[in-house]
Amino acid sequence: MKKKRKDLLGLRGVEREEIEEILATAEQMREISRRKVKKVPTLRGRTVVTLFFENSTRTRTSFDLAAKRLSADTLSFSVSTSSTTKGETLMDTARTIFAMSPDAVVVRHSCAGAPHLLARHFPWTVLNAGDGINEHPSQALLDMLTMRDRLGSLEGRKVAIVGDVQHSRVARSNIFGLTTMGASVRVAGPGTMCRSDLAALPVEIRHTVDDVVKDADVIMMLRIQRERLGRAVLPSAREYAAFYGLDLERLSRARPDVVVMHPGPINRGVEIAADVADGPNSVILDQVTNGIAVRMALLFLLLGNAEDASPT
Amino acid sequence: MKKKRKDLLGLRGVEREEIEEILATAEQMREISRRKVKKVPTLRGRTVVTLFFENSTRTRTSFDLAAKRLSADTLSFSVSTSSTTKGETLMDTARTIFAMSPDAVVVRHSCAGAPHLLARHFPWTVLNAGDGINEHPSQALLDMLTMRDRLGSLEGRKVAIVGDVQHSRVARSNIFGLTTMGASVRVAGPGTMCRSDLAALPVEIRHTVDDVVKDADVIMMLRIQRERLGRAVLPSAREYAAFYGLDLERLSRARPDVVVMHPGPINRGVEIAADVADGPNSVILDQVTNGIAVRMALLFLLLGNAEDASPT
Amino acid sequence: MKKKRKDLLGLRGVEREEIEEILATAEQMREISRRKVKKVPTLRGRTVVTLFFENSTRTRTSFDLAAKRLSADTLSFSVSTSSTTKGETLMDTARTIFAMSPDAVVVRHSCAGAPHLLARHFPWTVLNAGDGINEHPSQALLDMLTMRDRLGSLEGRKVAIVGDVQHSRVARSNIFGLTTMGASVRVAGPGTMCRSDLAALPVEIRHTVDDVVKDADVIMMLRIQRERLGRAVLPSAREYAAFYGLDLERLSRARPDVVVMHPGPINRGVEIAADVADGPNSVILDQVTNGIAVRMALLFLLLGNAEDASPT
Repeated sequence: MKKKRKDLLGLRGVEREEIEEILATAEQMREISRRKVKKVPTLRGRTVVTLFFENSTRTRTSFDLAAKRLSADTLSFSVSTSSTTKGETLMDTARTIFAMSPDAVVVRHSCAGAPHLLARHFPWTVLNAGDGINEHPSQALLDMLTMRDRLGSLEGRKVAIVGDVQHSRVARSNIFGLTTMGASVRVAGPGTMCRSDLAALPVEIRHTVDDVVKDADVIMMLRIQRERLGRAVLPSAREYAAFYGLDLERLSRARPDVVVMHPGPINRGVEIAADVADGPNSVILDQVTNGIAVRMALLFLLLGNAEDASPT
Repeated sequence: MKKKRKDLLGLRGVEREEIEEILATAEQMREISRRKVKKVPTLRGRTVVTLFFENSTRTRTSFDLAAKRLSADTLSFSVSTSSTTKGETLMDTARTIFAMSPDAVVVRHSCAGAPHLLARHFPWTVLNAGDGINEHPSQALLDMLTMRDRLGSLEGRKVAIVGDVQHSRVARSNIFGLTTMGASVRVAGPGTMCRSDLAALPVEIRHTVDDVVKDADVIMMLRIQRERLGRAVLPSAREYAAFYGLDLERLSRARPDVVVMHPGPINRGVEIAADVADGPNSVILDQVTNGIAVRMALLFLLLGNAEDASPT
Repeated sequence: MKKKRKDLLGLRGVEREEIEEILATAEQMREISRRKVKKVPTLRGRTVVTLFFENSTRTRTSFDLAAKRLSADTLSFSVSTSSTTKGETLMDTARTIFAMSPDAVVVRHSCAGAPHLLARHFPWTVLNAGDGINEHPSQALLDMLTMRDRLGSLEGRKVAIVGDVQHSRVARSNIFGLTTMGASVRVAGPGTMCRSDLAALPVEIRHTVDDVVKDADVIMMLRIQRERLGRAVLPSAREYAAFYGLDLERLSRARPDVVVMHPGPINRGVEIAADVADGPNSVILDQVTNGIAVRMALLFLLLGNAEDASPT
């Protein structure tokens, strides 16, 4: 990234060359986790803080482990947003954290734009680990790395994203990243959910899951918020599975070598059937492994500098 | 262990030679915690994950500190089993963790057999930190190390275990380990609790606490689950103390040099009186100290290899 | 400290020379946090435990980061005091922790004297991180360091402390430390709160906030416990702000270069107005930064020894 970037807030507007650099660095980083000694001294003495206003053990742990494998010190803040006025909590908590001289702060917040606010106010590196329904760039980068492992290149590939696309930051970051990399994205999901908001994005909206599945190179199933099922906006879990879930029968209509993805944690039997999640097309666990590699790459590229020519 | 063992799931079937090796290694490890610099580089760059589906600050911390003193990176997952179907949580959480390339996973779960399931499915080391009412091997090993410190050898020793033996994984692991090492075990506890299930184990069942206490070399008091007291199965706390608790009066009927143990945390005044817990016969704090040493030994033996000839 | 001090339990009775030494060491430590590699090997292999019976992410994190920047291993225990008899929990938990061979234990407890009890019973270093309404010495030390940064010397300075002084351990530690260093302290707060208990302390009690503010070199606003507002003892939040809060209007009656402090987290619009907290007189964030430096200094002075002549 040649020192030009202080933060990573989203993939919208990030150029292809930069994504290539991140993915190439992540491939090198992945080697470190395969060694017996899974640790390099690159970020020794640096402090990486995870500041999560929404609970997520998986993403927080992935960043934490990535930082540790680069020898950084890590600090974890989990803040409940319910107790106080949100704006106050965000800025005052952030000020306190930044006064502790961290090198990078990894932020998750239920409000879109929260990491951007922090990045503008503070001189330190901010990594967006999910902001409202806006972006979740490290997830999309690990998804792209996982696709590339299977498909070689993303150029011209057809990626189907299925589920509540319009409320999904995972979907949005993937849409920005994938189209920049030359792939095309088609989406499908419950009718109530795929509406005008998506029109502004470079995606093709199809109305049945079978429509997007049939010629896809990749099927990305989104996690459904179980607490939203059975309300006005969404059908019951059983209906959801029948209409929008990916089971073996539906999968049989896709290409035999289609890559099946899910950001996890999965609701087995709702958006994805157990035998699909655990089957030969699934790369769900590769996504987890690549998550650490991508986050190591981001920390290295954003915090490392010229002298640290090689991470290894 | 000469690379033959991948996991430690229980002491049932573990041979005497292997237990001797663990205890001897733990004695070396104990020296490390007595130094000013309580750290050796043996497991630098290795990742040790504690995955606890039941809450236990003490055991988790003990493993965590053991790993840190060997220079491993540690990661802690606490999962509430109440929220989702247990089987699902276990396997999906485990898959996610194993995709992060840990070297060892320390598992506690309310279902007997959960660590065994993980050990079968994954190529990495699994350490059982308590599974249902089945086993808790590191606890029994630290208990045996503590007994040996006082008694020299376990051969021919008489160990009394008092309390809800039949529902105690601590008791079961001790029964397997102690009898392998040549000690004999006698148990006593509330009549409703010491029944047929115990008949299959190599123990002698006695019906009053005084009966087991009188000629014992060691008295191991089990922790009673306070929430179970006063229900149909158990008397009130006051009655429990009177019939099954160890107070000074009852202790006076034992050998004067009897060793008093408790896995902690203790319910003072219920299963053990405060003046007994804090008295000269008690080795309760030595158990804690030995816990770290035993867990360092297990991590070293399971993860270390030929080149790491000496831990120090 | 020349090995004479095992613990730091409070500033009452601590001599000027010793406070000077701590503050001078903290200034050196502060340099470490400004480097790219924010870490020195001074306490490598030492174990620092934070044992908090009251919740406080900020103070716990500050000690944790201080220990990490000195390369110590850290362990965090958060204990809820509600579940069991307090005395039991304290001593039994402490015994367990001390059996793990920590080098220092940082304790916060709702009962005054709890850290003193531990310091008497155990040979290891105890650092008081707040005990009831008694003392919070590291907070006062960081406050004094922050004042000195702005004012050069504390000798002859006038410090106003505003709020529920009589129930504030922050106020008490500051009163002891500041008067030892030659400053004078004046306090003001709600009439129900500033009573006879304060008469024993070397402070001047004034009855309106304007009275203490007008000639002060430093105004230290105390955090109000929101849950106590609107009860018999305290007015509503709105009234509190009007009578005892620091807003721009009230600040305009103080010296133009007055230093405004708050231990955080702040209740914006209650004890301090947002534009004052964020204004040019405020040093609230410097307090956070200095907190890490002071805690590094304390750990270094209490745990380091002759051979470790320099922390850097």
